[in-house]
Amino acid sequence: MFSAPMMSTPSVPIPLMDSPRPGLSEFDRIDRFMKPLTRGYPGALALSDDAALLVPEAGWEIVVTTDALVAGVHFLATDAPEDTAAKLLRTNLSDLAAMAADPFGYMLTVVLPRVVDDAWLSRFTAALAEDQARYGVHLIGGDSVKTDGPIVLSVTAFGRVPAGTAVLRSGARPGDTVFVTGTIGDAAMALRDVLGERSIEDPEHRTALLQRLRRPTPRVAFGRALRGIASAAIDVSDGLVADLGHVCTASGCSATIEATRVPFSPAVTALIATEPALLGRAVTGGDDYELLFTVPPGRRAALDAVAAAADPVVTEIGRIEGAATPRVRLVGADGAAMALTQTGWSHF
Amino acid sequence: MFSAPMMSTPSVPIPLMDSPRPGLSEFDRIDRFMKPLTRGYPGALALSDDAALLVPEAGWEIVVTTDALVAGVHFLATDAPEDTAAKLLRTNLSDLAAMAADPFGYMLTVVLPRVVDDAWLSRFTAALAEDQARYGVHLIGGDSVKTDGPIVLSVTAFGRVPAGTAVLRSGARPGDTVFVTGTIGDAAMALRDVLGERSIEDPEHRTALLQRLRRPTPRVAFGRALRGIASAAIDVSDGLVADLGHVCTASGCSATIEATRVPFSPAVTALIATEPALLGRAVTGGDDYELLFTVPPGRRAALDAVAAAADPVVTEIGRIEGAATPRVRLVGADGAAMALTQTGWSHF
Repeated sequence: MFSAPMMSTPSVPIPLMDSPRPGLSEFDRIDRFMKPLTRGYPGALALSDDAALLVPEAGWEIVVTTDALVAGVHFLATDAPEDTAAKLLRTNLSDLAAMAADPFGYMLTVVLPRVVDDAWLSRFTAALAEDQARYGVHLIGGDSVKTDGPIVLSVTAFGRVPAGTAVLRSGARPGDTVFVTGTIGDAAMALRDVLGERSIEDPEHRTALLQRLRRPTPRVAFGRALRGIASAAIDVSDGLVADLGHVCTASGCSATIEATRVPFSPAVTALIATEPALLGRAVTGGDDYELLFTVPPGRRAALDAVAAAADPVVTEIGRIEGAATPRVRLVGADGAAMALTQTGWSHF
Repeated sequence: MFSAPMMSTPSVPIPLMDSPRPGLSEFDRIDRFMKPLTRGYPGALALSDDAALLVPEAGWEIVVTTDALVAGVHFLATDAPEDTAAKLLRTNLSDLAAMAADPFGYMLTVVLPRVVDDAWLSRFTAALAEDQARYGVHLIGGDSVKTDGPIVLSVTAFGRVPAGTAVLRSGARPGDTVFVTGTIGDAAMALRDVLGERSIEDPEHRTALLQRLRRPTPRVAFGRALRGIASAAIDVSDGLVADLGHVCTASGCSATIEATRVPFSPAVTALIATEPALLGRAVTGGDDYELLFTVPPGRRAALDAVAAAADPVVTEIGRIEGAATPRVRLVGADGAAMALTQTGWSHF
């Protein structure tokens, strides 16, 4: 837990542990930047104890997930700290949404090299505070340690569901319909631009797509609404096809996606119009953080009622089928299977 | 969560994400090394979902803590993986013990450079399996990501306490007696040896002290026994004096430690006999992972009953006093305060 790490004894010699960091001491950093994020959550004990307390409500279960980001792998140290904070917290909240859980708190571990200064931490934690208000979560605890390597950020996020109502990957059955929220492929197209592979010419489209890559929107409210309706759910992080593959593997079934039904934003639609092969990239690229879920025939009416009131558009894109070996097929307008060359579902 | 990270799209280009790692794929590594650690904990969903489930029992609270280790700071990449695994899990369990919680599970995040091979991971996870059996905990979930920096390992550990019985740092009151389990300073003396500062000549003593540094013993059973007895508790990680300082700060009181009462192992006693100044190092060095706790006068008999049956020796070392400004005094046989120069309690 956060605990004045400057004062602890390193197990091995490393000069940076002994020389003061420029700016605030570690103790003051925790006091200044981390402690305010716990306000409103008494179980955090204001970060002054060895551990934090979760007080479960009778009849509810706690859902817990963890995801880490490494500078140079998942983000760049030169990225805006606000974007990094949003990506860190929101990808974890997206995992909770995929289980139909209400998020309520998170533990934060920051592994920081000396070059990360108070200004970075101030912007990073201010962005966390914004998202805390947006999604109704609090910092519960964490750890702060030093490194002579790249920044590593890790969040363990907590949500709750009424007992037995968490939506798992394993509940899909033949006959279920496959749906997805929002639009697919925005982040993958933005990534091409960021990688310098191909820039997006339309400035409005470029802004919209980069925003989708940098500030994903976890479908928290909609995920909660899927309790009792979806038979299986996952958030789209590895790619639409790969993630539907994960559902099929867990559920022991297969799936067909109709390519013409996959929802694309105007920007992605325009890109695919000029380069049709990009459709494959869009459905395998990942980082969408949309909810991909299956609904049994008998709950279709309930879904329609929820979807009508929902903020993200909900689109039917395919169906679950029985199969000896789980697989995912993408079929074109002619009903023929399309070959995908992009990696991301190579395990089928 | 663990989720076939080799297949996810990196947000920025990094060659190591695209070239296969020698040995097993990331997916196979999780399947081979991580999944078996979840056996016996259904809420882990065999690592096949977006999140894990904690099913609280009525009338119990969940206690959660997190601690990270960085290679080159808290351990060396060349250390035995078994020692690294034990230190990672046990320091977290020690935090739970300090809250009087029964540990039951943990999330594990491994951030690994390519040079870490399957053999390392096999030994690391085998040691985790041993400690899981020893302490009655299971792997619940986690994340596995790559880095081109040093190894980073993070655990978020979960325990439970009957509602309202967690022992906090803030409950010490003037008149309480201060106790500590086991012996103090073993790890600090071993660290001097490891750092090459001064080797321990007696081979038996050297082995015993190095073991205490490398394989700390979290006082899990004794921590649980302190429910309803201790008014405050903390585990000794920053150093005996500094950690008693944390209790005083949280409780708004002061404390006096009698140096002649602090329990030392035969090895540390021998070292102090030849170099008396080492006493200061022993009480400020840290990494002891013993429980330091306070007991009100009315509960002394209950403590004696528990301590008589306890595995770690329990020693009375001082008392809690009132004070306008929290501080910790170490007094010698003559009752005069001893000056400590070692850092570790510089905030007083």
